[in-house]
Formats: sequence, structure tokens, C-alpha cells
Amino acid sequence: MSASDSSTARTPRVVIIGAGFGGLYAARALRHAPVEITLVDRRNHHLFQPLLYQVATAGLSPGDIAYPIRAVLSRQRNTRVLLAEAQAVDLQVRKVILKDGSLDYDYLIIATGATDSYFGHNEWERLAPGLKSLEDALEIRRRILYAFELAERETDEARRRALLTFVVVGGGPTGVELAGAIAEIARQVMVRDFRAIDPREARVILVEAGPHVLAAYPEGLSAKAEASLKKLGVEVWSNSPVTKIESGRVVAGGRDVSAATTLWAAGVKASPLAQSLGTKLEKSGRAIVEPDLSLPGHAETFVIGDLACFLHQTGKPLPAVAPAAIQQGRHAARNILHDLRGRPRVPFHYLDKGTLATIGRAAAVADFGFVRISGFFAWLAYLFVHLFFLIGFRNRFVVMFEWAWAYFTFERSARLITGDIDKVTIPRKPNQE
Amino acid sequence: MSASDSSTARTPRVVIIGAGFGGLYAARALRHAPVEITLVDRRNHHLFQPLLYQVATAGLSPGDIAYPIRAVLSRQRNTRVLLAEAQAVDLQVRKVILKDGSLDYDYLIIATGATDSYFGHNEWERLAPGLKSLEDALEIRRRILYAFELAERETDEARRRALLTFVVVGGGPTGVELAGAIAEIARQVMVRDFRAIDPREARVILVEAGPHVLAAYPEGLSAKAEASLKKLGVEVWSNSPVTKIESGRVVAGGRDVSAATTLWAAGVKASPLAQSLGTKLEKSGRAIVEPDLSLPGHAETFVIGDLACFLHQTGKPLPAVAPAAIQQGRHAARNILHDLRGRPRVPFHYLDKGTLATIGRAAAVADFGFVRISGFFAWLAYLFVHLFFLIGFRNRFVVMFEWAWAYFTFERSARLITGDIDKVTIPRKPNQE
Repeated sequence: MSASDSSTARTPRVVIIGAGFGGLYAARALRHAPVEITLVDRRNHHLFQPLLYQVATAGLSPGDIAYPIRAVLSRQRNTRVLLAEAQAVDLQVRKVILKDGSLDYDYLIIATGATDSYFGHNEWERLAPGLKSLEDALEIRRRILYAFELAERETDEARRRALLTFVVVGGGPTGVELAGAIAEIARQVMVRDFRAIDPREARVILVEAGPHVLAAYPEGLSAKAEASLKKLGVEVWSNSPVTKIESGRVVAGGRDVSAATTLWAAGVKASPLAQSLGTKLEKSGRAIVEPDLSLPGHAETFVIGDLACFLHQTGKPLPAVAPAAIQQGRHAARNILHDLRGRPRVPFHYLDKGTLATIGRAAAVADFGFVRISGFFAWLAYLFVHLFFLIGFRNRFVVMFEWAWAYFTFERSARLITGDIDKVTIPRKPNQE
Repeated sequence: MSASDSSTARTPRVVIIGAGFGGLYAARALRHAPVEITLVDRRNHHLFQPLLYQVATAGLSPGDIAYPIRAVLSRQRNTRVLLAEAQAVDLQVRKVILKDGSLDYDYLIIATGATDSYFGHNEWERLAPGLKSLEDALEIRRRILYAFELAERETDEARRRALLTFVVVGGGPTGVELAGAIAEIARQVMVRDFRAIDPREARVILVEAGPHVLAAYPEGLSAKAEASLKKLGVEVWSNSPVTKIESGRVVAGGRDVSAATTLWAAGVKASPLAQSLGTKLEKSGRAIVEPDLSLPGHAETFVIGDLACFLHQTGKPLPAVAPAAIQQGRHAARNILHDLRGRPRVPFHYLDKGTLATIGRAAAVADFGFVRISGFFAWLAYLFVHLFFLIGFRNRFVVMFEWAWAYFTFERSARLITGDIDKVTIPRKPNQE
């Protein structure tokens, strides 16, 4: 017990909601602070989302990119971890409402991130799963692998073609990475595994509403990414907004395709917790924050990461990437420390260290600001940056081994169909294009 | 196409049902045979069941102990793999009835193994899951880890105690390994991770109906295993048949205990496919086979592994272990080759290479027939024998790394709660002992 227990000043209680990059780095930055931290997450693990697509495409196991939150913070004695779901925040009485219980706070950091947005078509969610959690990744892995199994047994030619057609909706980094990885599995990994089908005949279609994939990247890199995708055999449909998704069928940009597997990587919206705040949100539901990352009128409450809309640097929201969340998590912690020491808060400034996306084996694009690269060296940069941010030596080592193994053997370590395969959507009446 | 296509002799069709140890080794033993093999399994992966308890206790990932059947046999051109569920066999017309379709055969090898037996109490299955598939293992992992999470948040003392009580029913190798691993997690791995509870207070109870755990082992080793379990903090309740399992409650040998988590390792019965054969079964549903492993009156049909009851060597059934299944798989293949070459069949003879069970960190018992060992060297033997039978260099390497990592760091790599946690049984009205 510290001396403050006997004084009238209570140890300030800091509640952090969400143990993604933002929340976890905020908690760590407060490790020496004289505060009582409660880190709440509805999962028991921190998830390294940038590599989630590799779990979805059988390259990595869930355990390789997830780490128990308790284990990360086990030695940080001022912090307890709670497996619980936050449902609302009452800013007036400073209380987080959990599904079962509540938490009072003196400082609050909200970092619950984003979920998939189907732009008003919630009925598409079942037909075209997105990629946000380990469960999502395993569902996508199940659908991809099971489609090949069904194709091997299918005698009807049109149905077989539909089973071997994979549509990825959305040409951002996740869509590009997913499409590239599916094409690689089909053309390089499964080549010898089937007898009735040739997996190389699989069609992988990347559908993008805008004119280019990786729209946020400089145009030169975006074109290079598209060329790499085509080399892998991915069809890129640009200027093709999706207008219909049915069981086994997708319509995009006026084209109609029969596909057993459709995946969603087209957009995100803020976690619904933001709506309970009663503060100003931008159109995708993110909370607009002050320069110090606090909510207007609630200096004790910070919103960070994908849930925050920070407009004070360029007038545009920051990219929804891990480095932005990490920097904001550390910054919110720093401003709490400044408060405790009676020093003025400092405004947040995002340091853009560049962007990276991979398209497959030895192919990636990178924009580090001062230099733009593509190809093998961009791919190596991608590998090392991602290994660096993985938590835990064990995960880094295993992921490095898996990548080296896949590179040299063309194998994938986690080609398992587990769980409920009855959910897989199979076209009943295949439509011809 | 081989010359036999133009002759009147059709290439014999061999159907193998089940890609466990028996079926997979049978298929491999026929790799050079002039036959068309179809290997049917309802999973896409071969599962290394002896290490399944390590997935259930967060030590290994599913991908570490499972391998895609197609990848094992991709270069074996006389073999196709079918993801399908066999529902019955019509021995008269030589046809395997699948859930969707059928397969004709000239030779049939049935190797569908065993499932958990609840001895007539099927209502216990939901309350006390067994350990046969990867899904089972993940369900058990979820229940164990979630119980600690709930205990951390529980304020009622009796409920908290129930949440930290784990009952393993059945003192065979699986029960001993599960109980030992749960005790290790609680006492060594999670020590620093919680704030409200001390995981070392967890009670792990191994319930055995007979007088000793590991009843099939020599009595000296059985006593050593019991001593190792007690050293780990496991309570061994021998002579304690289970009479009641309710939500959050177990009654065994007259003792009544409140436990949120109950696991089943008490018994197995043959896969239901045996019942469709119409041949003689022994009491646990296994098909009684001839000395050459074929069914009486059906020389073209072999039954092997845990599904077979082979009584011709000692008068007692063989142990339900991987080496017996492997040897029988190879032997059935050999007898098919003898038929094709016009040579007489040979009777099967089981070569007992010994038995092994591990109780935790650096503790195991081994009976190699000529020598019985326990402790550290038995544990090393356990590790190497299991690595040897794992399929694939990648899996061997990763499992070896995981074991070394766990040994030196006391960590577990796969402490993830994924999937549907609402299924976890929580005692509503805890009973006092």
C-alpha cells in the first residue's frame, strides 16, 4: 500500500476500454504512474490485426498473432485486466456501463476501434464475412478451403466454376492482401493436392468501387500493386461498386458473377460505443477529439485509435493504422501524466512513418515518405516491420519460421477446416456470367 | 493411363474410411500398388490425437498437431482424398454409403476409430466434454481459461471456489495428462496474471472409478504417476465412480463437489459405422476381426485400429493406441498386396513397443517391456517418441520449439479464448461439499 492511501487524495483510477494497439500502449505508458489502471476488453487476447489475413489464408495460426492481455501486463502491478464488454459510457457521472456491472473512473481512455461497415446492407454480412476477429479469420479460412473440397466433388461444370470463384470486395490493403494470398494458395500451394480439379483454375476477383486499388497510396505504388496482383492471376475490377450480394452471386459494376465465396474488405465504421457518448461524431461514427485527444468538454476522457476522428493536423482524419493508434495511446497516457504533475497538456502530432502493403510472395509496396519502393525489398521491409510490432519473442520467432518455411516450401502451415462447415454458402442455382 | 485399362482386368478400387493413424498408414503402404485408392474422411486433416490434450491446455495450436490429408498424399498419384462422411457400409453389394453419394469398392479398409462413451448418460456430454477432435480441444481450452476469468470477477466466495475447481473424470492416460496440465497452468503459468484470485488455489480433481490411475500400466508405474500428480497438486479420487453430473456439480464415490469445469476422459466406444456392418461386435461396439484383420465372411473388408476387436494374440483386445492402429493399417495393406500377387494372407501380430504417459513438466512414466522408467528420462522419451510420429518437418520443429519455450519460460503459447463463450457452464447455486 502506498502512502497516498492514508492521505485524503485517492489514487486516480484510469479505465482503458479496448486492448488493441491504442489501449495496450496507453496502459504500458502508464506503468510507472501513481494510478490504478483497469484495462477492459471483451477478449482475453491482444490481436495483431495487420496479420489477420494470414490466419484467414492458412499461413499462420491464431496463437501466432494473438497474445493474452494478462500475460503482457502480468508484471505491471498498477494494472488489472478485466474480461468484460463495455456497453456505454456515462460521461456525466464518470461511469463505464459493462454488460454485467460498472466501473467508476477519474480518467477514461476509449479505444474500442472499428467494425465492418456494410453501408446499410447488413444482410450482406452473413454472405460476405469481414475480417476483424480471430473468429472471422477462421470462418474465412473455412470457407476458402471448403470451397476447394466441394469443387473436387462437384460434377456440374457451372457449379464447380462457381465454387472455384472467390470475390474480395474492397481494394484497400486488407482486400489486396486477401486476394493475393488466395491466389497464391490456389496457384502455388494446392497445385498437386487435387485429382478432379486444377486449383490453378480458381478465379480470384478483387472488386473496387474507385478507379484504383490502394487508393490512399501514391498512384505509382497503386499501379505497381495492381500489376503484382495481375501477375498472381487476380482479376482487378476497378470502378465497380457492388450493388448485389446473394447466396453464390455478386453483382459489381454491372457485371454478374457466380461465386461460392465472397469476402468483405470494403469499409469500416466506428465501434458502437461512440454513440453512447453524446458527443459529436463524424459520418462513419468516430468521435471528434480535441488537439490533446480528449473529448470536447470532457478533459478526463480520451478517445484514440480507429474510434477517434483527429482533424487538427491536416484537416483530414488520420489513417486507421496501428502506428496511429500506438502514438495516440502513448500520447493520451502522457497527457494524464502531465495532469498528475500539474503540467499543461500537449497537443497530439501524428508522425507518419509510412505505409506498407503486401501482395504475395516477395511482392509488396512501401511508401516511407522519403522513399517509395516495391517488390522484394518492400516485402522484406514489410516482414521486418511486422515482426517488430508483434508482441512476445515466441510469436516473433514462430512467425519468422512460418514465413521462411512458406517461402522455401510453398506450404501453408494451417490448412485446417475446423468448426461448423454447414455455414458455407454454396450457390444453388449458379448464374452464368 | 496404364496398360490395365485396355485389358479386361479393371484396376482394383480400394476405399479407406478414416484418415487417422490406421487409415493413413494403410494408404501410404499401398503407394506403389496397382490400385485406385479413395481415402474418405469427414475432416480435411489428419489429427495427432496423442497431443490433443496439449491443445486443450493451451500448450500447442491446432495447426501444430494437424496436417492436411491432401498434403500428406499429394505426391501419391494412385490416391484421391475425399472430404465426406461415411454413414453405412453395404457389405453385400460392396458399397460405402456417404452422406451425399456412395462409393463402390473391391477392397475396403474401415478405420473410423472411437468416440467418447458416457455409459448411457448422454446428457453428461454437454456438461463434461470429451477430447476427440480439435473442436473438443478448443472447447475445453475455452472452458478452462474462461473459468479463471470469471473467478477473477466473482465476489461470492463459494461461487469463486466452484469456478476454480476442475474435475477430470477418468484416470487413463488422457485424464492423467489433462489433470496434470491444468494443475501446471494454474500453479506455474498463470501465477502473476491475476489480481483478485491466486490461480494456485485452483483445485484439480482426477476422479477414477477403479483403485488406480493408469490401470493398464504396471502397478509400480501407476503409483509413480499418482505420486507425480499429487506433487503437482492434483487430488486423485480413486475408487470413485461418477454417479451424477449436473451444471456446476459432480458426485463421485459419494463425494459431492461444486465445479464449474468438468471434463470427460472416462471411456470410449466404437464409431457408430460398425453397427451398419451386421457382423459380430464386442460390448463397446468394436467389430471382431479374423487373424488377417478381415471381417468374418468378407475377406475383402478389413477393420483396423480402435474400431477393431482383435482377440487372436492374447485373447484380450489390443490397447487403443496409435502404434496398434499403424501396425494394423500397414498389415491390411500388406494382405491386399498378397491377394493381388496371388500369395496367401498372413495373420496379424501386434508388436508392443511399450506405453508412455506424461504427467507434466519433466515427469512421465514409460513401460518399454524390457525396462520401466519414470521421471525426467521417461519424459524425454515421451517427447522424442511423439515428435517422431508427428507428420511433417514443420510441425515437428514448431512443437519442439514450443516445448522448449514452455520448459524454460513457464509460458503457454495458445492461451486464447475464442469462439462461443456462452456455452461455458457456470454453477448457479453452488453446493457446498
